[in-house]
Amino acid sequence: MKKIKVGVVGYGTIGKRVADAVMLQEDMELVGVTAHSYNYRILAAQEKKIALYATDDGEHLKEHGITIAGSIRDLLKKVDIIVDTTPKKIGKENKEKYYLPGKVKAIFQGGEKADVAEISFTAQVNYPKAVNSDYIRVVSCNTTGLARTLYEVHKKFGIAEVNATMIRRGADPWDIRHGPINAIVPVLELPSHHGPDVQTVLPDVRIFTTALSVSTTLMHVHTLIVDCVKTPSVHDTIEVFRKATRIRVLDNASKVRSTAEIMELARDLERSRGDMPEIVVWKEAIGVNGNKLLYMQAVHQESDVICENIDAIRAAMGFPDAKKSIEMTNKALEIDKWAGDSEWVCE
Amino acid sequence: MKKIKVGVVGYGTIGKRVADAVMLQEDMELVGVTAHSYNYRILAAQEKKIALYATDDGEHLKEHGITIAGSIRDLLKKVDIIVDTTPKKIGKENKEKYYLPGKVKAIFQGGEKADVAEISFTAQVNYPKAVNSDYIRVVSCNTTGLARTLYEVHKKFGIAEVNATMIRRGADPWDIRHGPINAIVPVLELPSHHGPDVQTVLPDVRIFTTALSVSTTLMHVHTLIVDCVKTPSVHDTIEVFRKATRIRVLDNASKVRSTAEIMELARDLERSRGDMPEIVVWKEAIGVNGNKLLYMQAVHQESDVICENIDAIRAAMGFPDAKKSIEMTNKALEIDKWAGDSEWVCE
Repeated sequence: MKKIKVGVVGYGTIGKRVADAVMLQEDMELVGVTAHSYNYRILAAQEKKIALYATDDGEHLKEHGITIAGSIRDLLKKVDIIVDTTPKKIGKENKEKYYLPGKVKAIFQGGEKADVAEISFTAQVNYPKAVNSDYIRVVSCNTTGLARTLYEVHKKFGIAEVNATMIRRGADPWDIRHGPINAIVPVLELPSHHGPDVQTVLPDVRIFTTALSVSTTLMHVHTLIVDCVKTPSVHDTIEVFRKATRIRVLDNASKVRSTAEIMELARDLERSRGDMPEIVVWKEAIGVNGNKLLYMQAVHQESDVICENIDAIRAAMGFPDAKKSIEMTNKALEIDKWAGDSEWVCE
Repeated sequence: MKKIKVGVVGYGTIGKRVADAVMLQEDMELVGVTAHSYNYRILAAQEKKIALYATDDGEHLKEHGITIAGSIRDLLKKVDIIVDTTPKKIGKENKEKYYLPGKVKAIFQGGEKADVAEISFTAQVNYPKAVNSDYIRVVSCNTTGLARTLYEVHKKFGIAEVNATMIRRGADPWDIRHGPINAIVPVLELPSHHGPDVQTVLPDVRIFTTALSVSTTLMHVHTLIVDCVKTPSVHDTIEVFRKATRIRVLDNASKVRSTAEIMELARDLERSRGDMPEIVVWKEAIGVNGNKLLYMQAVHQESDVICENIDAIRAAMGFPDAKKSIEMTNKALEIDKWAGDSEWVCE
């Protein structure tokens, strides 16, 4: 089998994880990643023997003892596809500067506007539509979390309307520049951008979202109120979520009562970097009020989209089978493994 | 080679790490750990095939589908040595209730008073004195951090007196009950207990300590002012720390400017649970003022004592060679690996 040759442009929170995930896929080969400025991430990449391609002349990096394999243009010539994980708007610039003229396929992240790509993507929702696309946009961590669970609810009960609030982490764990450290910051526009963004993946779901940021770095939490077409039940909702991929039902009985304990469980399970790529729904926070289904879910902003990028690579390269791709990705990244093996997470 | 049979009593932050570390040693065998109440840690232990011994009748655990291998008394009969990682004062109770009557050797943690054991222990300082002890006390995370670097400074320059302040994390990352979340809390006793505790390991070092707690979960930070006998230099201090085991010099140039970035580096290095067992000294925060040596160091409270427990097991069991034990432990736990291989952490 000829392996898919992948390059990663941008080597931050998402890029470094995508690079590691690509290396774990049997059908993929990581050609290299781009290095922008000297820092500990680049040092760790060098220790992992990942080839580094400079976004400029690379002199700054060489001064610090970093070995440079070439320029970003050299990288482009060697790959079948790029995963662009640069900050928002840079992805679009890179598309025009590099990927279109170089005739290279690319995966973009949710920070870019939807029109950067032919399709906005969540694997379990719309993989078949993305097959053979040149440009795919993996939606943001929050949108991915909403799309995964709402898709399952929509299939089971039918959705008349969703009202959801995103309680967002203030900054990522490594980030010492951003806040808040002691305030709650509402997003002062309605709806927040998340609702319209969900509709790029689930166009027939009516959804209205609000958002605010709080003083935590670990995970986002969503509270959802879903007006269903059929009357929902707590039992059926738990079953639907348990059987779905990339969703994990955890419970108070096992003392997983907070985002802190979810992250600690991920560490105890020896997850790479302590990541929890599954969307976590708290069993005891699933409720029904008439036709309204209520639930709360936690989203690990650093990792939930990594598996989506891997599936997006396969889709863009023409691999036709969504279920098979998701299974391959999940196996390599140990997603759903513990729940799937023993169903211990929820009796 | 006959393996040392180890049991772990208490399965929290330290116990679960000690259990994993024991399983990684070629000369040790983990017989099992004790389980107290049902929670996600016990579930993760069961998934790892670790034998669980109940501290009571175990009915509560069995109700949740946990398999119990026996009682704590059954565990005691099967082991050569116990590592007791229970909360403070419980270790002493366990000694009187179980270990003394059962004639079982035991390692205690720094939460116990020094008189629980024959010796208070930091491997690189006083391993030889601990050989063949029945009871050894591994000092606390903060005391371990102070003992490691001060021992090196004492050997190089001689210490006349130390004044140090511990800026302590408010709670561990998984802990949702304790604080502060928005205050700085001084320890209102002088000296704080850390100074006298350092003297249980370094009896001839004069040290006066103060402490306060802040709103973070990641690591402790110490600021130290060391009055030296010989005039110290920044260059020699960096060299001493770089060459010492279990101390890591990191720098601003590689953007490791905070405890947050140290923890992120540990994740990028694929450390188990994202741990950083080495004491981290910031290169740019090492200074000299006359005969005073100033430095700042970060202590990962969850992990720095784990390697000490492993060495304490070997010492108690009569393994005579301190250097060899430290090397075996470091290799199994990948301590010093990255710095030692390439010295990339400090040019």
